[in-house]
Amino acid sequence: MDNIIYFDNAATTYPKPEEVYTFMDKYYREFGVNVGRGQYTTASKANKIVEETRELIRELFKCSIDKKVIFTPSATEAINIILQGINWQGEENVYITHFEHNAVLRLLYQLKEKYNIKINFLHTEKKPLFYDIEKIKHQFQDIKPDVVIMTHASNVCGLITPIKEITELAKVYNAQVAIDCAQTAGLLDIDMKKIDADYLIFAGHKTLYGPFGIAGFLMDERSTLKPLLYGGTGIDSANPNLPNTIPEKFEVGSLNVYAIAGLNAALKWINKIGRENIYKKEKEMTTSLITCLESFDNIRVITASDAEKQIGVVSCVFEGYGSDIIGQVFDQYNIAVRTGLHCAPEAHRFLGTFPGGTVRLSLGYFNSKEDITKLHNILEYIYLDS
Amino acid sequence: MDNIIYFDNAATTYPKPEEVYTFMDKYYREFGVNVGRGQYTTASKANKIVEETRELIRELFKCSIDKKVIFTPSATEAINIILQGINWQGEENVYITHFEHNAVLRLLYQLKEKYNIKINFLHTEKKPLFYDIEKIKHQFQDIKPDVVIMTHASNVCGLITPIKEITELAKVYNAQVAIDCAQTAGLLDIDMKKIDADYLIFAGHKTLYGPFGIAGFLMDERSTLKPLLYGGTGIDSANPNLPNTIPEKFEVGSLNVYAIAGLNAALKWINKIGRENIYKKEKEMTTSLITCLESFDNIRVITASDAEKQIGVVSCVFEGYGSDIIGQVFDQYNIAVRTGLHCAPEAHRFLGTFPGGTVRLSLGYFNSKEDITKLHNILEYIYLDS
Repeated sequence: MDNIIYFDNAATTYPKPEEVYTFMDKYYREFGVNVGRGQYTTASKANKIVEETRELIRELFKCSIDKKVIFTPSATEAINIILQGINWQGEENVYITHFEHNAVLRLLYQLKEKYNIKINFLHTEKKPLFYDIEKIKHQFQDIKPDVVIMTHASNVCGLITPIKEITELAKVYNAQVAIDCAQTAGLLDIDMKKIDADYLIFAGHKTLYGPFGIAGFLMDERSTLKPLLYGGTGIDSANPNLPNTIPEKFEVGSLNVYAIAGLNAALKWINKIGRENIYKKEKEMTTSLITCLESFDNIRVITASDAEKQIGVVSCVFEGYGSDIIGQVFDQYNIAVRTGLHCAPEAHRFLGTFPGGTVRLSLGYFNSKEDITKLHNILEYIYLDS
Repeated sequence: MDNIIYFDNAATTYPKPEEVYTFMDKYYREFGVNVGRGQYTTASKANKIVEETRELIRELFKCSIDKKVIFTPSATEAINIILQGINWQGEENVYITHFEHNAVLRLLYQLKEKYNIKINFLHTEKKPLFYDIEKIKHQFQDIKPDVVIMTHASNVCGLITPIKEITELAKVYNAQVAIDCAQTAGLLDIDMKKIDADYLIFAGHKTLYGPFGIAGFLMDERSTLKPLLYGGTGIDSANPNLPNTIPEKFEVGSLNVYAIAGLNAALKWINKIGRENIYKKEKEMTTSLITCLESFDNIRVITASDAEKQIGVVSCVFEGYGSDIIGQVFDQYNIAVRTGLHCAPEAHRFLGTFPGGTVRLSLGYFNSKEDITKLHNILEYIYLDS
């Protein structure tokens, strides 16, 4: 992928830190056995990396002792396990942001059919774009929340959800709270000692700079979540039921130690660079990117009311052009962007960009200011050309 | 893992062909983007490998045009999608082998609670060990099968299930048939033009010599299976339901292109070596391994009635010693085996090795006759020592 300008980090960060590639290859060659299912020394060594990686995750989110890490192959699967595992009684009031991914939306649509749950949107101001905490407080007074599901930051426009404040409001009503940190884990400060959420979901291959195939969630060890998947756990094999211990109850089948090794290296890389430094670099580039895009008359950029409320995921509309066409033009100049609805149709309905969607440029640590300069030059060239 | 004698290939084959390591590393560095969700050239290239890998799977199983390949992160998940996706009406008669994995057993136990299904075991003779087709025919006459789930070969003792014959008998009653080929895909000849099964499950990291994180199943494009997991599909994003197209309906979230690249390299490696040659090499070693073990008075080896009915998964009991103790002794000599119940408690109940289990030695292409000679020498040394 030489010379590509990669602005699709919200889909998956690319490239990965060199440490991730190197360690995965080395690890799989040396320890590529099945963990938790063999007593021999190599299997124990392989298991060690799994437990170390859980600990690195717990440290990243500053977890108290009662929080457990459950690994899943994808954040989508973590969301399915959580939302399908809730003991729905019917008619519950569920609050979500306008910016949920189809992993949440399609699942809730099914649960609505089955349990007649009510789906409410957390109050969000459009122009300027921000969450109005006071209005959300009133919403909760009017219709008490039973379950709140929030993406921590929109994968369409980067708007950050005030998860701490909303969780506090929701917990007044003892609501269950799940936070999807697919776009923020490893980037924003997330302190589980200060945020009383029941579930926190992470994706290994996005802002955590790990590989595909590993994600997961945090949950309290006293959670009464029902399992979604059944299978072997390597322990308690004579039991016709899943063992009641966590994480085993939710981790059936062979763990993907290969991907866990990659996540392990990625978490250590984040610690080496420093999460704050990653954030700071991305923040500076986000400002440059928005400035670059806004310097063109015909590009309308969707931004949060306050720069501090937005991560490096930037959506824009090229007036007069469909987003897919712009994507194709960018591709000709070797710029990778993502166009359309980004698996988040409600976000576009809310932002007024449905059904055409937007052109999304999303940044990662390995972008440079040079990438944005190149983008600027190409945009100038295109505009002069037209 | 220098000098280890690895007899745990039924858990995961190890090592992998060099091509698998090399290609995964190269591929992820060059094309580690998110497929099916971006229009840019690199994403299209990444997508190409996914489609090529589906085609290699279809070729391996000699599929007709109406069979589709669905990728899942694990065989356990494939089994969950299939068994939870069947439109159960209640009271169905389900037939399974005595050798099913907990992925099937624990799931059926749940379905039994929910739908009051009846679980029947396909008739198997114990001494000698084989499936009695005539008796199975009578079983089906007595209690008509609605659903039949069969492991193609036991992960405990290697006994091969006559899947073609049993499927034929089951189809007389229009039963739905699912075959779990976790231990046999890429090793035994499986011709889906001749076997009228509805679902065939494969695991990438076992006899297919690919990495963890990729598995899947074959299904007919007309299947009415209900989805288990909901999420984004990269297409048809405005649809609150999953798209009705297969595989998209069952492949939510980001595909693990990294693992798919590894499976791709593994399938090409199988084609290069030739499946028959892999089988032949393993068969010869299986004979040697059984001969080696049987040469010791106190080792009781569980074998099929006919050598042709067994793959290279060999269970044995060391008279007077618990299997876990033997596993620890082996570990001291750097021999990796798996002891206990192997996530298949019913197999051990049937074989009379419950609850202590057996010592399992499982072979792969990268074992050598030298490994078995070394095993023989170590066993002699242990026996002389005791």
